[in-house]
Amino acid sequence: MKIRFLNEDKIPRQSLDQGTEAQRKSVQEIIDQVKKKGDEAVRFYTEQFDGVKLESLRVTDDEVDAALLELDEELLAILQEASNNIRSFHEKQVQQSWMTTEENGTLLGQKVTALDAAGIYVPGGTAAYPSSVLMNAIPAQVAGVKRIVMVTPPGRDGKVPAGVLAAARLAGVREIYKIGGAQAVAALAYGTETIDPVDKITGPGNIFVALAKREVFGIVDIDMIAGPSDVTVLADDTAVAHEVAADLLSQAEHGELSQANLVTTSRSLAEAVQKEVKLQLNELPRHEMARVAIEEHSAIYVAESIDEAVEAVNQIAPEHLEVQTENAMELIGKIRHAGAIFVGRYSSEPIGDYFAGPNHTLPTSGTARFSSPLSVDDFVKKSSIISYSKAAFDEHGSKVAKFARLEGLEAHARAIEARYRS
Amino acid sequence: MKIRFLNEDKIPRQSLDQGTEAQRKSVQEIIDQVKKKGDEAVRFYTEQFDGVKLESLRVTDDEVDAALLELDEELLAILQEASNNIRSFHEKQVQQSWMTTEENGTLLGQKVTALDAAGIYVPGGTAAYPSSVLMNAIPAQVAGVKRIVMVTPPGRDGKVPAGVLAAARLAGVREIYKIGGAQAVAALAYGTETIDPVDKITGPGNIFVALAKREVFGIVDIDMIAGPSDVTVLADDTAVAHEVAADLLSQAEHGELSQANLVTTSRSLAEAVQKEVKLQLNELPRHEMARVAIEEHSAIYVAESIDEAVEAVNQIAPEHLEVQTENAMELIGKIRHAGAIFVGRYSSEPIGDYFAGPNHTLPTSGTARFSSPLSVDDFVKKSSIISYSKAAFDEHGSKVAKFARLEGLEAHARAIEARYRS
Repeated sequence: MKIRFLNEDKIPRQSLDQGTEAQRKSVQEIIDQVKKKGDEAVRFYTEQFDGVKLESLRVTDDEVDAALLELDEELLAILQEASNNIRSFHEKQVQQSWMTTEENGTLLGQKVTALDAAGIYVPGGTAAYPSSVLMNAIPAQVAGVKRIVMVTPPGRDGKVPAGVLAAARLAGVREIYKIGGAQAVAALAYGTETIDPVDKITGPGNIFVALAKREVFGIVDIDMIAGPSDVTVLADDTAVAHEVAADLLSQAEHGELSQANLVTTSRSLAEAVQKEVKLQLNELPRHEMARVAIEEHSAIYVAESIDEAVEAVNQIAPEHLEVQTENAMELIGKIRHAGAIFVGRYSSEPIGDYFAGPNHTLPTSGTARFSSPLSVDDFVKKSSIISYSKAAFDEHGSKVAKFARLEGLEAHARAIEARYRS
Repeated sequence: MKIRFLNEDKIPRQSLDQGTEAQRKSVQEIIDQVKKKGDEAVRFYTEQFDGVKLESLRVTDDEVDAALLELDEELLAILQEASNNIRSFHEKQVQQSWMTTEENGTLLGQKVTALDAAGIYVPGGTAAYPSSVLMNAIPAQVAGVKRIVMVTPPGRDGKVPAGVLAAARLAGVREIYKIGGAQAVAALAYGTETIDPVDKITGPGNIFVALAKREVFGIVDIDMIAGPSDVTVLADDTAVAHEVAADLLSQAEHGELSQANLVTTSRSLAEAVQKEVKLQLNELPRHEMARVAIEEHSAIYVAESIDEAVEAVNQIAPEHLEVQTENAMELIGKIRHAGAIFVGRYSSEPIGDYFAGPNHTLPTSGTARFSSPLSVDDFVKKSSIISYSKAAFDEHGSKVAKFARLEGLEAHARAIEARYRS
């Protein structure tokens, strides 16, 4: 892990993986086929990519019951507690409809309505993520979405991991399909014989899932285009090197493209963390993946002042930010861009991944400049309400007509004036 | 305008124009060139598409001053009043940061931060839209965005319409470039020598602008992919036929692809509106465009009950909905999908386009199923805050480690356990 100096080195801007031409073509082809052939195409690609010929696409209640029995009770209790924490945090995000009234009879407002149906993508692959189920399904449920559909790729045995199914049950998801990849995204967006279309698709996935989500954006809504995960630790000399190193490595184990940065005002911490990362890395089961992430995508930046360090953080716009400094809470007012901010020594990033309550679906690849954590807001939409009384109309109608004519829209002016001759 | 019966006819689902292969290729080429060659490419395409060779891309303060003098005072006062109404409505959308605390020292929260920089696209073409300037710039300003950049294509004379510049001045926008099309979107997303990149691009445009926004989505945020405008009027026999007809036509004059529907429980209103549309259409300056919109994309639907009519409206998910029925306000609880709802006889749709206050940038093409009006929310993003005390960590740390191991993420568990040995 290299040490760099902010007064000499520039921080490279992260860029979003937009896929190769071949990947984009392949995704477009898959979507076209699912649009045309429905279930048949979904089965075909599931056999091709997941290596399994499915009898039924849908997971039965019996399969979920069996999964619950498979899980040990202590784990189930932890899942339940995490799920309570997530629900309680997201309940605070619920927005109310509101209105304003004026004496002349004008009423203006904003009505909040839940989406009819949401689709949740839960990745399979190298690790099974029950936490993804909770983090996507619970906000949808709190928002009041009536139909929540989960898709997740099956293993070679045609099964979905027990932890994922248990989490689905806890989160109240009853419509689950064992399909993944671009074919699952297409099925959710356009519908097939067995799967009704949804209004929004959320959840992380590989590059094919990301490209498919981009492709169907507009037909349905999507949460965001997720890239590789990243963390930045902002620390001074009060931080504990082996803890910082362990936190960096927890991010690095997600994949070769993961990024784990330290920005620090302390040269000695920089060196100590560098040493600890090397040491701990060798002991990790996923050390090969983590090593690529650490050596090729991560860096330690040494700053001359805390302000320079904070500015570097804003430039990185990290997905996860840990602030391990003296008076850490006082710094968060200066932090403009970060998906989630973990404050103080005991707020190790995995606490947010699984348990604390805030969402772990966060803006990656520097998109915290303009994106937010997944939230209840993602599962509602708003309608404006405009109600003018006759008095309000008489007062303002002619101004509207004049404005319309300024824009060259005569029929707009006449719509107002049609009320004059009644 | 054809009359259809809901018990016989299905409502066609609107679909988003995703452009032709040639249009997509052309947009990708333009973006690539602007990324590589910056201003040079922007100038090249401005000459090619707008037919004007620009000395300077930026609009000077003198040009804006001149525009203000050009506009008549009454119009300026109306623009000012509209701008006050828009500001006052959007100020009610401002969300607060919040936090929760627990006795064990846990602090969780959500911090709201304005975007650093927003880019606003204002269309040129057949009509100049000062209202677009107000509707995009004011929410950004209310959100607290420090840098607001406006782009708009120049006329053949190299100028921007006076109304557009006056609106920019009223809304406090000082950085304006006379560029449009995909080249303007690319310049805002990637930056050039003279234009710094922004974090989000909002505002309507033609198919090239829409495709370019889709292409840069993820590099920057975008508001939505806007399609042709549409209105649906929900009416019973208390509605006034010539007013309903005038409202439908005001939407139809936007362009050949516009859609204007009437859904009514009254057969006689259906017939009267049909007659009135025919009559009024002949008198319109833009009657050719409006005729195509009315004849090819619009319809009158007759329902057997108000519930059937409301369900049809939800299926259409209109951008603009007028409710012209008895006790109109009582119906809005049943309406799940609409960008803006205009309640009662005097709430003619143009009042919302220009004056009332709520945003006129609304979800089109049925996307009101999952999208919201442009709002202050579009110009802020959120960061989660997680702060665990030592007591909270001691209570819950081991559960987090166990959950992490369930997901096969050993380094996550060790990040927690690193705190044990300190």
